[in-house]
Amino acid sequence: MKTAILSVGTEVLFGQIINTNTVYLSQQLNLLGFDVMYHYTVGDNSCRLSEMIELAFRDCDFIITTGGLGPTEDDLTKETVCETLHDQLVMHEPSLQALHEIAKKRGRTMTKNNYKQAMMPSRAVVFDNDAGSAPGFALSEGGKTVICMPGPPREMTRMWQRSVRPYLEKLQTAVIFYKTLRLFGIGESSLETELLDLIDAQSDPTIATYAKEGECSLRIASKRGSLEEAQSAVDEVIEKISDRVGEYIYSYDDEELAQVVGKKLIDRNITISACESCTGGLFAGALTSVSGISQVFDRSLVTYTYNAKMKELGVKEETLSKYTAESSQVASEMVCGLKEKTGSRICVSVTGLTGPGGGTPEKPVGLIYIGCIFDDRLEVKEIRMRNVNREWNRHYAVLHMLDIVNKMLAQKSV
Amino acid sequence: MKTAILSVGTEVLFGQIINTNTVYLSQQLNLLGFDVMYHYTVGDNSCRLSEMIELAFRDCDFIITTGGLGPTEDDLTKETVCETLHDQLVMHEPSLQALHEIAKKRGRTMTKNNYKQAMMPSRAVVFDNDAGSAPGFALSEGGKTVICMPGPPREMTRMWQRSVRPYLEKLQTAVIFYKTLRLFGIGESSLETELLDLIDAQSDPTIATYAKEGECSLRIASKRGSLEEAQSAVDEVIEKISDRVGEYIYSYDDEELAQVVGKKLIDRNITISACESCTGGLFAGALTSVSGISQVFDRSLVTYTYNAKMKELGVKEETLSKYTAESSQVASEMVCGLKEKTGSRICVSVTGLTGPGGGTPEKPVGLIYIGCIFDDRLEVKEIRMRNVNREWNRHYAVLHMLDIVNKMLAQKSV
Repeated sequence: MKTAILSVGTEVLFGQIINTNTVYLSQQLNLLGFDVMYHYTVGDNSCRLSEMIELAFRDCDFIITTGGLGPTEDDLTKETVCETLHDQLVMHEPSLQALHEIAKKRGRTMTKNNYKQAMMPSRAVVFDNDAGSAPGFALSEGGKTVICMPGPPREMTRMWQRSVRPYLEKLQTAVIFYKTLRLFGIGESSLETELLDLIDAQSDPTIATYAKEGECSLRIASKRGSLEEAQSAVDEVIEKISDRVGEYIYSYDDEELAQVVGKKLIDRNITISACESCTGGLFAGALTSVSGISQVFDRSLVTYTYNAKMKELGVKEETLSKYTAESSQVASEMVCGLKEKTGSRICVSVTGLTGPGGGTPEKPVGLIYIGCIFDDRLEVKEIRMRNVNREWNRHYAVLHMLDIVNKMLAQKSV
Repeated sequence: MKTAILSVGTEVLFGQIINTNTVYLSQQLNLLGFDVMYHYTVGDNSCRLSEMIELAFRDCDFIITTGGLGPTEDDLTKETVCETLHDQLVMHEPSLQALHEIAKKRGRTMTKNNYKQAMMPSRAVVFDNDAGSAPGFALSEGGKTVICMPGPPREMTRMWQRSVRPYLEKLQTAVIFYKTLRLFGIGESSLETELLDLIDAQSDPTIATYAKEGECSLRIASKRGSLEEAQSAVDEVIEKISDRVGEYIYSYDDEELAQVVGKKLIDRNITISACESCTGGLFAGALTSVSGISQVFDRSLVTYTYNAKMKELGVKEETLSKYTAESSQVASEMVCGLKEKTGSRICVSVTGLTGPGGGTPEKPVGLIYIGCIFDDRLEVKEIRMRNVNREWNRHYAVLHMLDIVNKMLAQKSV
């Protein structure tokens, strides 16, 4: 089914925000077997929005809009879609109820704008928004459908997963089944080179590679007459891929590395503590994103200064002055001090240079040291990351820490 | 002058790449005073591309295209633009010469495709490409102009800077100036209600509100004959806004709260340490995103277990068992213990419930306690956040911590 994605919002036209919604929806719609024909962006302008809808319907069956559902005056998407598809807005009681509850929770009174948000086209299928205030909806006329979702990416993706995808899946006759594998430690080009003959040979399942924040994903999708057929076609290809690049795959189920590691720790009841310098708490932040981690995660000591490293972890002053904080010696003393202090079965440390300043020819920005102890086994690794920018370097250092913990977990079964 | 940006490429419609070209061009065109009215994306399809050009020219004077200028069969932008604007392709000798030189450098012979790349519309202004092989061009008809640039971002930005921007600058008379204010602690609806008469009264400068991850932004933009005029018009409106909602504004320059707080700490050389329970290191992670923060940031102790809270911070066992970890008493003991241990001028603690599980009627998910000491002044705050999900609750708790530190900094000038 032919589909257009229509983003509404002057901030997009100003280039103030990157249109990640459209990327996400394009991927998702393609996976469902919808053909995305156009992306459009217009400002908060009723007349131009209406024109775009009419234009898209010349050859599309579906239009998915994001944005312009907020409570304010310049949010016009709902009103415009309703008018263009010849419907009227009526008060939608469940939405009004939900907005009342949000207001109550926040200790605020309902504004006039809130009532506006609860009005919905009379023929609409309404999608509630459990991550924000603006509900979404689907409205059809003459076999064509407009689906409107809120603009904030968190609200949009949540609504997509909970309501819009299931709604669209029901309309689709062929069944698409896909799996997403996640890999760490191999670049997208190398991955593609390894799999090129597989990628070229397949028309179904399709194999697509994606690079994302220092990791790679592989999406294997099949569109068949039944779920079983699609599933077994996908599994067959995954087996071939596994034979070639299995060592880099950390998830066969599109899970983040922190989730994979955190769940293993919880399942096996293995306690963990960390001490962080250059990652500044982001390792702990990533690991504690896993629900239930408090069972096994004891603490992380973010020791930024020399003083903190000495006082908290017992790093020796002469080690710091002789080798600098960015050294395997310091990474080792940090993790040993942490082990002594916490007794956690796994202890992990990191120190290094994430920039932008501070690099030298021998110790460039991007150089990090990770220490890891699992029971009585100590490993210290030097890693030279490509220096992109501070934010990316910090993120990538966390992935390396998780990767090392994951590998140590794999080597030891109890 | 009204402008549309048209991206050409099936890979964009598949969501395989993020359309950074459009973001970049939107920002650049707005700065030049061009009104970006539409973003369009179409696949490599001549018929749909031609339709989009005709559509955009109904109300735009300029169309900027990216992509589809490559040497392969499915690159159709140049041919389609040429035909739609009633021109013919002719061999462009300087482009042919440049392609010859590239081939020579790479030790290759010219392919048939290379000759195709050197063909240009007869009336075009040609822009050479010193970062790749495909030249760009501008082609006009009846006062309307299409500008075509290559798709790879590095080639596109280089061509923009060297050739296209200077070409457009000559055509432009007005200047746009804008500022973005960031606010915390006020919702988008309330913000608009506070400013409604200002928003309604203004046609230039325009005032637009945005909601983003628990915060609000305000963009004030003016288009005038000179930069000075636009700037002073914007400043005048900002003064009025400041009078009404100044207490919520933390940046007049579109900076993140962590950056604002971090820079103040560095500028005033005020040391800081943190201890975190429910935010799991994310406060430290946010603050250490600020370059140069190592001057003032000593450490953060992420104490997840009862044991870690007692051992690291001296929280009393009876306090934990009497009040639970999620209490103002524990937040207070945590921050006092930290102060004693680190001596940092500012110490901040957080404990609370970020879910998904663990909530009770008296202590629901979303309830957090923040302790903050600045020199000898202690504050402990109870905050009841709207419970969205674990990730959002953690993010929002960090914003609250930063907000409290920011306010304590404002109350004390040395």
